[in-house]
Amino acid sequence: MQPLALGLDIGGTSTRAVVIDGSGRRLGTGRAAGANVTSHALDTALEAMRAALTAALASVSAASVGAAVIGTAGDHNLTRPEVASAVDALWASLGLTCSYTVVADATVAFVAGTPAPDGTLVLSGTGAISARFTDRRPDQLFDGHGWLLGDLGSGFWIGREAVRSTLAALDRGEQPGPLGRAVVQTLLGRASFSPSRPVVNEIVLAVHTRPPVALSALAPLVTADAGADPEADRILAAAAGHLLAAAAAVRSPAEATPIVLAGSLLTGDTPLAALVRSGLASRWPDAPVGLALDGAAGAAWLAARALNPSGADRLHATLFG
Amino acid sequence: MQPLALGLDIGGTSTRAVVIDGSGRRLGTGRAAGANVTSHALDTALEAMRAALTAALASVSAASVGAAVIGTAGDHNLTRPEVASAVDALWASLGLTCSYTVVADATVAFVAGTPAPDGTLVLSGTGAISARFTDRRPDQLFDGHGWLLGDLGSGFWIGREAVRSTLAALDRGEQPGPLGRAVVQTLLGRASFSPSRPVVNEIVLAVHTRPPVALSALAPLVTADAGADPEADRILAAAAGHLLAAAAAVRSPAEATPIVLAGSLLTGDTPLAALVRSGLASRWPDAPVGLALDGAAGAAWLAARALNPSGADRLHATLFG
Repeated sequence: MQPLALGLDIGGTSTRAVVIDGSGRRLGTGRAAGANVTSHALDTALEAMRAALTAALASVSAASVGAAVIGTAGDHNLTRPEVASAVDALWASLGLTCSYTVVADATVAFVAGTPAPDGTLVLSGTGAISARFTDRRPDQLFDGHGWLLGDLGSGFWIGREAVRSTLAALDRGEQPGPLGRAVVQTLLGRASFSPSRPVVNEIVLAVHTRPPVALSALAPLVTADAGADPEADRILAAAAGHLLAAAAAVRSPAEATPIVLAGSLLTGDTPLAALVRSGLASRWPDAPVGLALDGAAGAAWLAARALNPSGADRLHATLFG
Repeated sequence: MQPLALGLDIGGTSTRAVVIDGSGRRLGTGRAAGANVTSHALDTALEAMRAALTAALASVSAASVGAAVIGTAGDHNLTRPEVASAVDALWASLGLTCSYTVVADATVAFVAGTPAPDGTLVLSGTGAISARFTDRRPDQLFDGHGWLLGDLGSGFWIGREAVRSTLAALDRGEQPGPLGRAVVQTLLGRASFSPSRPVVNEIVLAVHTRPPVALSALAPLVTADAGADPEADRILAAAAGHLLAAAAAVRSPAEATPIVLAGSLLTGDTPLAALVRSGLASRWPDAPVGLALDGAAGAAWLAARALNPSGADRLHATLFG
């Protein structure tokens, strides 16, 4: 019997696992909470990994898994000895006997979008990063510095710009437009208000009572007002500009390799995705554009590819086609 | 005997108190740690107030103080009943018998820079805010939204731009210039490094191990490299642009009232101050420009003015001349 391949994608929003066979059938899937593989959050990450893996392995024999790939942000953390030994123990407790390879979350996103070894990843979700891949390894990254320092064009960035735009209107004594009213409604829970410093102070306070990344929850308000509020259009155009500049920083003008779009803001049918696609098409008209919709399957494909390199292209078409 | 006037300026960096007599002599001064007057930090704020006031009152009779003004960020917090009663108790315990007036920290900065009732305040320190004053009250504010949402052109903002500029050079595989090398030296403690993702990750981690506002400690690096590194010049020009735009948002083009510069980045002989002064002079050539160097004295002046309005202009010249 052909060995199975296991993929695990540990993300900030969710942790997903999938087991596939050599023909690309998904034999088991699992989903758990998001996790960060840092020492202070290790127990939480291990619990999420255990939950996702247990579900994915529910109806297959763990011993029949012949290869596994784990994708995670901060992949260097997962290979630190004290973390690796905890993962090894979890691995053995689930009956898994194969070894596993750890790669960056960007890598499983890239391979989920293309079977090609070289190309460009442009990601915008809660965070934002662009990367040039050579032989399926990220050999140049741009941004991905986190909300405090970067992630320009991410959901966090767009949400914060929405609040900034609202505050600027209020500071000018102007009634905000549709986007600003939606921001006030979401943050303060009311539709009626007059532009005043107390309202400004309330908004600032409301934002500060939540974790900063919660600002990304306001990004959908900007998406919703695209075409209806010039401020929403301005913010989305600026976000697309940041993402296109990041792509240009890691991709030469003449390149024709695939471009993979990843992250919730670029894989859906959003105005931001349309702007980014249009910008990419005008700069790199010959580049095929793929979507990274299933990072866990990307990880599983990498594992399956290690077991059977010659069937990898056909497997990719089956898994993601 | 003429009653004395007491001023207290509660700032994020320090809390300062001063007692003056009617002729503008400083009879006592006190300084303590910075404080934020919010409910969860109330004990710390009260302790800073007590320390600064005790020192300022060391050689005068508290009962001879006839008027007092307290300037603080979040002045609305200090007048909330549960906070006000704690301040009242502190007040009584120090032997103070006069009442006190609470105003915004921006107000004591404004009056420290001009005896005129109307004008514009442009402040850049750890944070940034601009304000139009009418009759010594801030009737329009712009920005001052805190580091997460605003404070454009502040020390925090400049320090963060310095890190961003450094990360962008490293992401491009370039050796950073003098500013970037100073940033790496300060954050990582080493002068020699090659542009690589591990260095990027180390910088991001180093920033995240400190409170976000600690980024303002990097602003002096930008100041130091003005004229020596184009990135420093670009950041300072952008900061000045934000501050001038904020001033323009609260000041009409034809206005000739005084402009008061406040905050450590604008009251010193810094390149940013020079850029802002030059921009203000070209937009409002007829406006006198004052400096807010002593907010506690501004508060004391407001108190003294309440005791003797007719002598206020002369007193201002003595106190701040």
